[in-house]
Amino acid sequence: MTAANTPSPAALSRAVAESLPLAERLFAELQARTGDGVGLTRDAYGKGEQIAHDLVAEAARSLGLEVRADAAGNLTMTLAGRDRARPGWFSGSHLDTVPRGGNYDGAAGALAALAALTALKRLGHRPAADLTAIAIRCEEAGSWFGGRHGGHLGSRAALGLLWPGELDSAVRLDTGKSLAWHMEAAGFDPARVRSGPPLLGPERVRGFVELHIEQGPVLEAAGLPLGIVTSIRGSLRARSARCLGAYTHSGAVPKELRHDAVLATVELLGELDRAWDGVLARGQDLVFTVGKLFTDPEMHGLSKVPGEVRFTLDIRSQETATMRAMEAEAQRLAAGIGARRGVRFELGPFALSEPAAMDRGIRERLAEGCRALAIPHQEMPCGAGHDAADFTRVGIPAAMIFVRNQGGSHNPGERMEIADFGEGVRLLAWFLATADLPPPAGAGFAKAG
Amino acid sequence: MTAANTPSPAALSRAVAESLPLAERLFAELQARTGDGVGLTRDAYGKGEQIAHDLVAEAARSLGLEVRADAAGNLTMTLAGRDRARPGWFSGSHLDTVPRGGNYDGAAGALAALAALTALKRLGHRPAADLTAIAIRCEEAGSWFGGRHGGHLGSRAALGLLWPGELDSAVRLDTGKSLAWHMEAAGFDPARVRSGPPLLGPERVRGFVELHIEQGPVLEAAGLPLGIVTSIRGSLRARSARCLGAYTHSGAVPKELRHDAVLATVELLGELDRAWDGVLARGQDLVFTVGKLFTDPEMHGLSKVPGEVRFTLDIRSQETATMRAMEAEAQRLAAGIGARRGVRFELGPFALSEPAAMDRGIRERLAEGCRALAIPHQEMPCGAGHDAADFTRVGIPAAMIFVRNQGGSHNPGERMEIADFGEGVRLLAWFLATADLPPPAGAGFAKAG
Repeated sequence: MTAANTPSPAALSRAVAESLPLAERLFAELQARTGDGVGLTRDAYGKGEQIAHDLVAEAARSLGLEVRADAAGNLTMTLAGRDRARPGWFSGSHLDTVPRGGNYDGAAGALAALAALTALKRLGHRPAADLTAIAIRCEEAGSWFGGRHGGHLGSRAALGLLWPGELDSAVRLDTGKSLAWHMEAAGFDPARVRSGPPLLGPERVRGFVELHIEQGPVLEAAGLPLGIVTSIRGSLRARSARCLGAYTHSGAVPKELRHDAVLATVELLGELDRAWDGVLARGQDLVFTVGKLFTDPEMHGLSKVPGEVRFTLDIRSQETATMRAMEAEAQRLAAGIGARRGVRFELGPFALSEPAAMDRGIRERLAEGCRALAIPHQEMPCGAGHDAADFTRVGIPAAMIFVRNQGGSHNPGERMEIADFGEGVRLLAWFLATADLPPPAGAGFAKAG
Repeated sequence: MTAANTPSPAALSRAVAESLPLAERLFAELQARTGDGVGLTRDAYGKGEQIAHDLVAEAARSLGLEVRADAAGNLTMTLAGRDRARPGWFSGSHLDTVPRGGNYDGAAGALAALAALTALKRLGHRPAADLTAIAIRCEEAGSWFGGRHGGHLGSRAALGLLWPGELDSAVRLDTGKSLAWHMEAAGFDPARVRSGPPLLGPERVRGFVELHIEQGPVLEAAGLPLGIVTSIRGSLRARSARCLGAYTHSGAVPKELRHDAVLATVELLGELDRAWDGVLARGQDLVFTVGKLFTDPEMHGLSKVPGEVRFTLDIRSQETATMRAMEAEAQRLAAGIGARRGVRFELGPFALSEPAAMDRGIRERLAEGCRALAIPHQEMPCGAGHDAADFTRVGIPAAMIFVRNQGGSHNPGERMEIADFGEGVRLLAWFLATADLPPPAGAGFAKAG
């Protein structure tokens, strides 16, 4: 697809290739300046994150982009459009990390957006509306803030999604100070966040595309550099499930008189594992994880029939109904196994986080871009939470590009090849350059489920 | 069965009924004088055990029995036989407890033997050979002594079963002093234990009968006061089994790319649970316990696919072959599941303790006694270790009488009814009064396996 005022794929690819050294230099500076001896630490609303924002802002300024920070500290870097009043496209991700994390989770998306705008500017592209790279604050909120909060504090602050009082009830784990205190200490304006209209909304943002390293091994296993995310999986989680039986002597009590919490739990989890196979066989999306499973260290013993087991259940899917069906199956099985084995299961509350469907129109345009640029790719779900999900919650169409990554994420072993990153920037630049063309007939906006 | 010089069942029952108040008084004094505020504490080769030995010895002396302590501190109380040189019958159990234990585990057997001799003496019975009640030291060695030792230190010291150096390598957990030190401090003669011939052997002991509370709920569930033990189960134990997989993101990794240690372990343990059902269906004796099962508290998380699980396996049976078959099944399943699920099981070493078959001739006489005295009973295995097993290891025929007990053992909730205890004393007195009659034709001595 080429049209008036859009660069050819060949020209675009050359311009992207010329902008990659800037991204490589920024990755290297982030590595050097936010290393902690083990991994990378860019603490949200703290020194590490600020170093990253300063580096990126300085690079954007030197490229001639319009650089601003919003009241919550999110950094925007804009290539001005012909019509400044028209809602524009945003692309980016966060710059904070978990403690001792890796260099790419978050930063890859912010630098990809900056590199794409660099390439378009180099080509002399003048977009119809503003194109904005955004570096978001505090996406790793769960690692830095305790107290009561809903995570993703930078994007949720900008989108008007904070709960009443969340600026005060989110408390940084190391300092004990509130989110409002840290926002103000970093030079921003929590009072504006608290009382004004949202800093970002559909009237200003035409759509949001987030490039991110894949946090699993799917692209690596498939031999593909890029993925286009269909949906950010929701989750349904039981944090404090348990099975209560009775402690007795392991030698002196025959099977029929036992209330064995371990073997009852083993039966429940084995049945749920089989139920998972059934869901996959029906072509539905599901992942199921028992991350914690433990007898009581104060009470258990080699020669005691176990009287208690605690465990967690993490059920994730692109479909809420699939998760609810798995929860119902767990409750049904627990009741039957409990009655038959003389134990009591208490699965406890299940906390739901809704899936966030990625916008179908953007996904189709991204797939079209991959074809135009000859980039091998596949569609795939995203299993972890991302800022892109928050944009969908206020009705902003959003999508995600995954870049192949070895070593998982949230650890120093994250390993993204710069060639794969370059494919992501090519796709992103192509998309931003062509995004204001009319969407293909029949494409609609899928809202958050 | 009545014969010359043996009392009638009716006369015996009356004499036992008249000797029970003595046992009740001794139980009450033990309760009062070795209580710790929570349960009972009679520390082995310490003050609590000595209080119990002094109480019992004083009662035996006042009854006119011959009271002695051997070089290891085991207390013998003998009703002299017509032929003092002939090997005699012994009956008894230990007087020590676990810390904060109950009043009956051990003491019931020592007091039952004393009460039975009291009844026989009251009847003017003159046995063919000596009849001896024995209060054994330090059966709960695992609760009091650390270092290197093989448990049951009192009976094993008497029977010549201590390992070379065990008197020095067994070290009391609270004092740090050796078994030899404590034996000497309590007034006994570790040098004699160390160098002389065994204090007890087949040339002196015709057979050993131990009455003990049942440590499980079988008799309670069956509504029977007494059980006759067929065999003391052996055990085959893996203390440090584990499954090694790989930690990954619970949302981002599809099922086929996981190395999930929990779900692999769940499959293994579920299959072993079914294998256990199969063994029982074939009429074989087996109990199977996973007392400890835990993910790594330093590494696990709600949203991490678990990369490691540790667990224990406790396999017990009256037949070594049944235990070895279960071990082989565990290894076979672990290899197959490990290969299929991309994890590695390391079940670690299995430690074997052989079963100890109770003597068939004594068991048949005990069953005959139950019929003569109209005592409802059943045959049953014993799941825990007892001094009786050690007697079988040196070729002394041994057997056990179980008395119904609620509340398990090794805790303050042990609850034996004195009426059930009385049935045990009746059976024991009948057995001791008639034991020197010729055994029924065809009865042989089953040795330890």
